[in-house]
Amino acid sequence: MSSKDVCGACFHCIFDYQTPVMLVISKKRVGTLFRLIQLLIIAYVVIYVCWHQRAYQLQDSVISSVSTKVKGNILTNSPTEGVHVWDVSEYVIPPQGESSFFVLTNMIVTPGQTQSSCPEVPSKFTNCESDSDCRKGSNEVRGNGVQTGKCVQLSGTIKTCEVRSWCPLENDSQIPRPALLSAAEDFTVLIKNNIQYPKFSFRKRNILRHINSTYLSTCTFNRATDPHCPIFRLGDIVSEAGEDFSAIALKGGIIGIFIDWSCDLDFPERFCIPKYSFSRLDSKNPENNVAPGYNFRYAKYYKNNGSIETRTLIKAFGIRFDVMVFGKAGKFHIVPAIVNLGATLAFLSLVTAVCDWFIFNCMRDGDYYAKHKLVHLGQKNDGMPLSSTESTSYGTP
Amino acid sequence: MSSKDVCGACFHCIFDYQTPVMLVISKKRVGTLFRLIQLLIIAYVVIYVCWHQRAYQLQDSVISSVSTKVKGNILTNSPTEGVHVWDVSEYVIPPQGESSFFVLTNMIVTPGQTQSSCPEVPSKFTNCESDSDCRKGSNEVRGNGVQTGKCVQLSGTIKTCEVRSWCPLENDSQIPRPALLSAAEDFTVLIKNNIQYPKFSFRKRNILRHINSTYLSTCTFNRATDPHCPIFRLGDIVSEAGEDFSAIALKGGIIGIFIDWSCDLDFPERFCIPKYSFSRLDSKNPENNVAPGYNFRYAKYYKNNGSIETRTLIKAFGIRFDVMVFGKAGKFHIVPAIVNLGATLAFLSLVTAVCDWFIFNCMRDGDYYAKHKLVHLGQKNDGMPLSSTESTSYGTP
Amino acid sequence: MSSKDVCGACFHCIFDYQTPVMLVISKKRVGTLFRLIQLLIIAYVVIYVCWHQRAYQLQDSVISSVSTKVKGNILTNSPTEGVHVWDVSEYVIPPQGESSFFVLTNMIVTPGQTQSSCPEVPSKFTNCESDSDCRKGSNEVRGNGVQTGKCVQLSGTIKTCEVRSWCPLENDSQIPRPALLSAAEDFTVLIKNNIQYPKFSFRKRNILRHINSTYLSTCTFNRATDPHCPIFRLGDIVSEAGEDFSAIALKGGIIGIFIDWSCDLDFPERFCIPKYSFSRLDSKNPENNVAPGYNFRYAKYYKNNGSIETRTLIKAFGIRFDVMVFGKAGKFHIVPAIVNLGATLAFLSLVTAVCDWFIFNCMRDGDYYAKHKLVHLGQKNDGMPLSSTESTSYGTP
Repeated sequence: MSSKDVCGACFHCIFDYQTPVMLVISKKRVGTLFRLIQLLIIAYVVIYVCWHQRAYQLQDSVISSVSTKVKGNILTNSPTEGVHVWDVSEYVIPPQGESSFFVLTNMIVTPGQTQSSCPEVPSKFTNCESDSDCRKGSNEVRGNGVQTGKCVQLSGTIKTCEVRSWCPLENDSQIPRPALLSAAEDFTVLIKNNIQYPKFSFRKRNILRHINSTYLSTCTFNRATDPHCPIFRLGDIVSEAGEDFSAIALKGGIIGIFIDWSCDLDFPERFCIPKYSFSRLDSKNPENNVAPGYNFRYAKYYKNNGSIETRTLIKAFGIRFDVMVFGKAGKFHIVPAIVNLGATLAFLSLVTAVCDWFIFNCMRDGDYYAKHKLVHLGQKNDGMPLSSTESTSYGTP
Repeated sequence: MSSKDVCGACFHCIFDYQTPVMLVISKKRVGTLFRLIQLLIIAYVVIYVCWHQRAYQLQDSVISSVSTKVKGNILTNSPTEGVHVWDVSEYVIPPQGESSFFVLTNMIVTPGQTQSSCPEVPSKFTNCESDSDCRKGSNEVRGNGVQTGKCVQLSGTIKTCEVRSWCPLENDSQIPRPALLSAAEDFTVLIKNNIQYPKFSFRKRNILRHINSTYLSTCTFNRATDPHCPIFRLGDIVSEAGEDFSAIALKGGIIGIFIDWSCDLDFPERFCIPKYSFSRLDSKNPENNVAPGYNFRYAKYYKNNGSIETRTLIKAFGIRFDVMVFGKAGKFHIVPAIVNLGATLAFLSLVTAVCDWFIFNCMRDGDYYAKHKLVHLGQKNDGMPLSSTESTSYGTP
Repeated sequence: MSSKDVCGACFHCIFDYQTPVMLVISKKRVGTLFRLIQLLIIAYVVIYVCWHQRAYQLQDSVISSVSTKVKGNILTNSPTEGVHVWDVSEYVIPPQGESSFFVLTNMIVTPGQTQSSCPEVPSKFTNCESDSDCRKGSNEVRGNGVQTGKCVQLSGTIKTCEVRSWCPLENDSQIPRPALLSAAEDFTVLIKNNIQYPKFSFRKRNILRHINSTYLSTCTFNRATDPHCPIFRLGDIVSEAGEDFSAIALKGGIIGIFIDWSCDLDFPERFCIPKYSFSRLDSKNPENNVAPGYNFRYAKYYKNNGSIETRTLIKAFGIRFDVMVFGKAGKFHIVPAIVNLGATLAFLSLVTAVCDWFIFNCMRDGDYYAKHKLVHLGQKNDGMPLSSTESTSYGTP
């Protein structure tokens, strides 16, 4: 072969256009079936994939920053502590206003604790009759201190092992009923939330553009009338979570404040608005539960003149509010669009296989069509050179 | 049919190879169009999908742990408090060094508060002329205590309702200008960040391998000269966020420190380095804002000899720094690779449809090609048995 | 053309069924190759994509809420502080039981600090011989206060610059060995974790349904015997992370408690159980490290009679436990299923191309098959009307 021939062959190889030879069958039944299946697949793509699932979108997860501010005062009048007015810096712990904040609703106060020795709280492990029942240095994980080895009088006829600890020990067998700060129901919390979707350089906050300062100074969130007010009454949050405030105030609990920022960013920015929802996160089930409710202990430390450290221990029951921001934003992007459309196109090619099967197996003259569709070709030596040449050399003499 | 025949038919059904018959059209125009579109699609796949979007990669989201440590001291000299040197344990709240930390920059101190009664701060709701203007037990969410029902002298001619609360009440109408601790600008913060991508068992920290202890003891982050130093000057962070430190120090604010760990893990581990960026997260817009800036109240509690609890209330203004770690890592994985390539292949099959349409509709001899491409087949009874047999029985006598 | 003709053409265009004409080659070698490749692709789809990767599933990321509660007491007997029993409210900081909690294991206590002046801790920057070596108002970021400009006696022959600060200054050159609270190893922590997958409205907590209160009151997590007990011994956590408790207790560190909630929600809910793992998050590498371990300073404030504020500064070393919840849940969904199947189908069409290439290039009678597969068609004017008409007009007279 001359080099010119090689070039020509190459040229043909590259620029000859190949298109499949198609058999056209003019049968209404088959044609209808074919178009019907095609239509179903296209409808699926348009309606479900594109419209409902928005599979043509690139997705990004939300990044969020939350700050919270609780407002309200409570007056309590307990027999032991007297009249006391509680303000935010006392009942919100920690005070910084982060996305997870705790509002004190009930407490057991043990004032005047010092490092000394005292009898343990009675239980089957701590009750004793003589010193031999106590073991010096014993340090039970579930106990309240380190045993001194002595068995001492607690009250009346009960004797318990003495422990070295912050004494007197807290007695948490009785919690105040009703909850001391059950009026916390009327407190309000302002939640400020800034989010961004870094992939789309999209930023927004939950105080929407159309909300002005005057409205903010008076509004309270209400799903029906004020769905965009970022100030929530604690009682409303708890009742929207399906709980009873006075019950949860007693032993505490964890309430989730969910802010859903799922957005379709192909629409204008103003349609991207947060949706609030609330639900209780800890379990009330008494069956398989341990330490139900939500509480923790903290102490305020004092030093007397003689520089002896005294503390007031507080077992704080209350509601922890966890603000949880989630959501995904989608925006049209060529890659997921191509992938989803392409994959569905591939399914369209299955339709031909289905229709062929239908023709060859379910129609009376299936064999006739099969003969025309399938060009059988055997071994070269038993072929018919004449007809084969004839049928493949049109136009290339 | 004998069982041998059935076997043979089955065998043919399974092992006969079917390949579509193609019509080859040697027209430069069509061939060029065909190759051009193919090339465009392949270029899209190679350049955009593979190289730019890395759609052949499996993705994972970052899991991160952050610890922070602020350094620096400030001397303030206020007329009421005298000379005071502030150290980290005083101005960083909470002190633990978590991913969100607050640096105190300004404050209103109200010392000597005790549980007692005092006149409310004047406002249109609290001003009064006689006891009848006040309601005993009234407890406004936006008030400072629980009203006793008395109307008392506040100062000069102003009378307000008396409240039971921590008295004297804080007067936050005037905040110190300039901010008391505006020199906090020169503090530094060390940010330690460990991340992992659990799907790829990949772990790394922001103190890179080539950084040694000597460098760390002296460096300060600078985007141009020290982009990998994990020690940041607060003033630099704020100015990179486009804010003025002395302004933000006055009323507080929230600054986001973003660490972007987006990585292509098909490259060696050393190319996976964090990118830092900073921006202000709270809103400065005075129009639709409430409680601008960032502040909270906390108290230090003291007990005098007579065991009366006294407290110093501090309204703390300052900057909350939120370290936010985000990013996705990608690594080659066969499933997304197949999905993306497959979907694009499916698009290649569209090219033939486009070219066919072009030939049949836009070219002069379109009908001629159409005739060869489409083999029309009608009802069996109006067929031509001879030619059909002839054309489909090559090689299978 | 009459309107009836137009209608008819349209009708044909829509309801004529087109199916590609196929060349059937009865060659065992080719047929086997073809079926083999098809089988491989189908096996890949079924086994890898569907069974192993579950690519037919829609995925969602976990949303989680964690609360923790540490239990245990420690008795320490230091020469300076005397006997002291530590309880949870003292050694867990902050006390609220959030997902990140710190357990104090070692400390340097500096009692009786007041705002006054004292000599700096010696270093090459603070040592001096006369007042001229000190600069009034100098405020080093790494120093402990603001210099007064005087050079004063520290001890023996050492003189350092005087600073105004909380005095006396802390001396942290020596940390207690062994760690003061190294017995913290025996503390236990109860971790309560509630998760949800919002897309699937799926909620679960780590206290599984079959666990009852009796078991919870006694169990301790053990990978072999009690893998579902949510109560962990601190020592076990640290040793599972591959660390030595007494070593980490000395200077502190950060331990990650990972809870993996990866679930296949096509299975019943009871198969979705959390998997716990532990690892150290901070770096022990002494080479490129700064401030190794984990520590922070906090203070307790007291007021003496003369209302002079005194504080006890505590440099707290300890272990920060970060509970990190991650995981993705998958559930069958039609969109990813279609996309993955479709994309693989598209690959099936590549098989024909591979087999054709094999026939035409590797088989002896490749040319013969090529001739039958490819129907060459040249320019109209050099065509052969007779044969072309003959071959394309079957059945359409």
